Amino acid sequence: MGKKIVIIGGVAAGPKAACHCKRLIPDAEVTILDQDNLISYGGCGIPYFVSGDVNDEEELRKTSYHLTRDEGYFQNAKGVTVRTRTRALAIDRQKKCVEVEHVETGAKDSIPYDNLVIATGSQPFVLPIPGADLDGVYTISDLHKAIAIKKRLAMGEVGKAVVIGGGAIGLEMAESFADLWGVETSLIEFMPQIFPRIVDSYFAAMVQNHMKKHGVNIYTGEGALAIEADANGKACKVVTPKRTLETDLVVMAAGVRPRTQLAKDAGLLVSPLGIVVNNRLQTSDPNIYAAGDCIETTNLITGKKFFAPMGSLANREGRVVGDNLAGIPSTFNGVVGSFVMKAFECCIGATGLCLEGAKAEGFDAAASISAPSDRAHFFPTQAVMPIQMVFDRKSRRVLGVQAFGAMNDAVLARINAAAALISKKATIEDFSLLEMAYAPPFSTAIDALNAAANVADNIASGRQRSVSIKDFTNWAADMSSQPDWVALDLRHPNDVGYFVEKFEKKWLPLVYNEVRQRYSELPTDRTLIIICDAGTRSYEIQVFLDSVGLKNSFVLEGGFNVISRLGLEWWPKK
Amino acid sequence: MGKKIVIIGGVAAGPKAACHCKRLIPDAEVTILDQDNLISYGGCGIPYFVSGDVNDEEELRKTSYHLTRDEGYFQNAKGVTVRTRTRALAIDRQKKCVEVEHVETGAKDSIPYDNLVIATGSQPFVLPIPGADLDGVYTISDLHKAIAIKKRLAMGEVGKAVVIGGGAIGLEMAESFADLWGVETSLIEFMPQIFPRIVDSYFAAMVQNHMKKHGVNIYTGEGALAIEADANGKACKVVTPKRTLETDLVVMAAGVRPRTQLAKDAGLLVSPLGIVVNNRLQTSDPNIYAAGDCIETTNLITGKKFFAPMGSLANREGRVVGDNLAGIPSTFNGVVGSFVMKAFECCIGATGLCLEGAKAEGFDAAASISAPSDRAHFFPTQAVMPIQMVFDRKSRRVLGVQAFGAMNDAVLARINAAAALISKKATIEDFSLLEMAYAPPFSTAIDALNAAANVADNIASGRQRSVSIKDFTNWAADMSSQPDWVALDLRHPNDVGYFVEKFEKKWLPLVYNEVRQRYSELPTDRTLIIICDAGTRSYEIQVFLDSVGLKNSFVLEGGFNVISRLGLEWWPKK
Repeated sequence: MGKKIVIIGGVAAGPKAACHCKRLIPDAEVTILDQDNLISYGGCGIPYFVSGDVNDEEELRKTSYHLTRDEGYFQNAKGVTVRTRTRALAIDRQKKCVEVEHVETGAKDSIPYDNLVIATGSQPFVLPIPGADLDGVYTISDLHKAIAIKKRLAMGEVGKAVVIGGGAIGLEMAESFADLWGVETSLIEFMPQIFPRIVDSYFAAMVQNHMKKHGVNIYTGEGALAIEADANGKACKVVTPKRTLETDLVVMAAGVRPRTQLAKDAGLLVSPLGIVVNNRLQTSDPNIYAAGDCIETTNLITGKKFFAPMGSLANREGRVVGDNLAGIPSTFNGVVGSFVMKAFECCIGATGLCLEGAKAEGFDAAASISAPSDRAHFFPTQAVMPIQMVFDRKSRRVLGVQAFGAMNDAVLARINAAAALISKKATIEDFSLLEMAYAPPFSTAIDALNAAANVADNIASGRQRSVSIKDFTNWAADMSSQPDWVALDLRHPNDVGYFVEKFEKKWLPLVYNEVRQRYSELPTDRTLIIICDAGTRSYEIQVFLDSVGLKNSFVLEGGFNVISRLGLEWWPKK
Repeated sequence: MGKKIVIIGGVAAGPKAACHCKRLIPDAEVTILDQDNLISYGGCGIPYFVSGDVNDEEELRKTSYHLTRDEGYFQNAKGVTVRTRTRALAIDRQKKCVEVEHVETGAKDSIPYDNLVIATGSQPFVLPIPGADLDGVYTISDLHKAIAIKKRLAMGEVGKAVVIGGGAIGLEMAESFADLWGVETSLIEFMPQIFPRIVDSYFAAMVQNHMKKHGVNIYTGEGALAIEADANGKACKVVTPKRTLETDLVVMAAGVRPRTQLAKDAGLLVSPLGIVVNNRLQTSDPNIYAAGDCIETTNLITGKKFFAPMGSLANREGRVVGDNLAGIPSTFNGVVGSFVMKAFECCIGATGLCLEGAKAEGFDAAASISAPSDRAHFFPTQAVMPIQMVFDRKSRRVLGVQAFGAMNDAVLARINAAAALISKKATIEDFSLLEMAYAPPFSTAIDALNAAANVADNIASGRQRSVSIKDFTNWAADMSSQPDWVALDLRHPNDVGYFVEKFEKKWLPLVYNEVRQRYSELPTDRTLIIICDAGTRSYEIQVFLDSVGLKNSFVLEGGFNVISRLGLEWWPKK
């Protein structure tokens, strides 16, 4: 037998590193340790198992060719030994061995290694509030919890559910309850918006509004103060500063933390963001590698360290570790930060930095919002897909892209292309000319991502002056706050009725293709907010009005296609 | 008024350049000339208009906000003058004017310019065969032809149709006839495969096989020798060297040529690939720009000039011309070459060079074929998506990617990301680590594109030895040709029956996870062709067999997922 490789952690990064290095050095003796009995499952599939889209938890543990990834599978198919229910207690770096204990029998053992891989993952953050440990409160930390939740659903025990935390896991779990099971579901998020620091507020609002239409009540800016129990000691209420939500089940999805205690105890370099590794994914002990949710990684945009707990990264890192264990000098240089999520009939995706995040990182950041079609506007399945592009004004580098569209792969097609370019430090011009494949059933001749870059170009070049959606909607909600504005609505006369009635003299309809003839009718002493469906025509009209000396206008970026999706209080409900 | 800008050509590049530059320099006097009366239509939408997906030709000329892009629209909305039915006869570069003639009245005029833009597009290549000019023979060169074709379909005059040419336009037209109209449709392609030099033969075969299942008969390696007329002089037969196809309508889609005569006559530099331009899209006369199908462009992979007639490129080029007309020094540096196409319930897409093309360009090219899932294999809508990645062995640079999947945006999501990376000269490693957004409804933890790169890595590193699909299928079709091989089928015992029965002793079933226990049963004196569903397990087993001294094996890349889609003669029909 060749060298001994021990891997702590049996999900994602661990098995990937194990199997890849075993293929590269077939005589290596590779052992995976995991304290659980269920290993190598698709954790990101848990919401779809709970929802019923996936029938059986075993499907999350199966390969595409229907073998269950259990101990026998790894032994027989991969030549890798797995010791389940085996907890790593300590790493003895001098003796190069891992002290372990069998979780059930308590039997202890010492497992020698030539190379060790730490893939201990992350653990859910449990809010330090009363009742966090009650029966009926679940974190989404492993498959057992998911099985227990689904059992309660299937037994008809859950009429109401509360999810604490508005990140992807929380939102996916909320959908899984509300969609197929018809559970009355509420979600609370401590921050003022869902997806904080992942997408900007408008995109968060679009998702929130859509989920509300599907019966998920989302309360932002409200943290959970306590979870209360019924007479049987089961969680029955979640208390926030503003309300008390009755519930039969609570999911606590308040984020995760890297699981680093073992590494710390072994004297390895560990930061609050995870185990410190170099770009070969070696820890401060060159014999020990680490990968997956337990490590800190580098943000390729800011160059700073950050924590990116994602199953897809864990797998890629696992492969890099496998290479290095076999002497192939592969590197993992960092992460752009991409995500995509289903929300009922819609899809939200993002890559890179959001505007708020980019500003916090010190960029001279601005953003374009546009609302192009995801495919040719004459093609029957077309849908509007709002896109935000975040860029640095000085360097014109694109820092991030967000998109919200129909539940298909249209958002993915733009986010993946954007992530690829952003990782190569691309500029607005690169995005403007980016070659997106075109045919009417899939895209537009000027792709949505090109169009977003064109708007960014107009803004970065100082050609487009915009009013922020936030400012405009605040003014519209409280007309005394900013009495000066008048809306110039360029849309078809059929579309403007509600607004003219509501806003009276503050709402001037003047259809787009008549402005050149009729601009003299416009007031010269007011601030014109130019509004159309997507923002594009508004920009054209702003340029024209500037050219005839009417320089008092601002474009409402993204137009009605964006604000109609925000779920504003004063918006017509139809 | 400011400077006079005249643009010859009213579709795609022309209107884009006109409107963009008018916005940048609002006092410019911008005039578009076009010999047609229908302008600025979405030409790529013609097959969907003919099929009925799009009801009315006017929809192809409308904006997303339902205004028809006619002369009045350009004048009123854009401030751009359009002169339709106006043919440009000559360019007088000394006097800086364009001599024109009104197509109906014959009236002549001379239109002065400060800057001229030539956007004359391309013209369909009409095969020099007898009958090419018969009634009932159509090229897809403008909207009038499409309207005439649809009229014949709607009148019930078309029971059978023949399409000459197996590029995207020909295939899309074939689908449009066969799908909603139920026309008995045949397509002939002179080259041995459809999409010659665009995708490689296996991907062409997958599309061909799928279209055949939907009733389109495709004959490759057969050119049209003649089109014959009935007693009324209407096309009724297409003759090839192998057959005579009866038909009511013929579409000639045998490629297009750049329309350069006007530029040539004006003494501008013109190559067989189009009008020669620099990266500012200036012709050899710095006052004259050119954009769209009529120019030659640069292939960003080979660095060589080529002809890329695509509506999406034309629009991007139009914007660059608009910038330059306004003094903004934008550049258009070239094209990777991306396409995507709907084929009934499937989708084919490609970017960069195909393997055959890469070899012809002198690269030390090889390719990986894999057959990953487009989304988590446990997610209900998942489908297999074969991917080919073409790379240069020496530099490990990725030269191209092809994919064939279900009719959704999954292929697009990979092609767009690949095009973005290829334009930045990315390597296999870049693709292996490329950050593709992950959630089970959209993708797999190791995305299909990453997986394709991992296979490419295995091949480029010399770790995987493959048999080509062509060789293997030839051997299987004619067992006397290569008597030495034996298939080692790793799939589930339920799947192997047909093959064991058909190939008898040449087909050894041995399920994947039993090989480590039972490899001693394998013959040592034969060439083992290892076969699984996607090629992945075959590679693993090859590595294992090598490690135990059985080095006589080859992996069948892409496995059953690929060969089952090729429409092979000897394949079980089920």
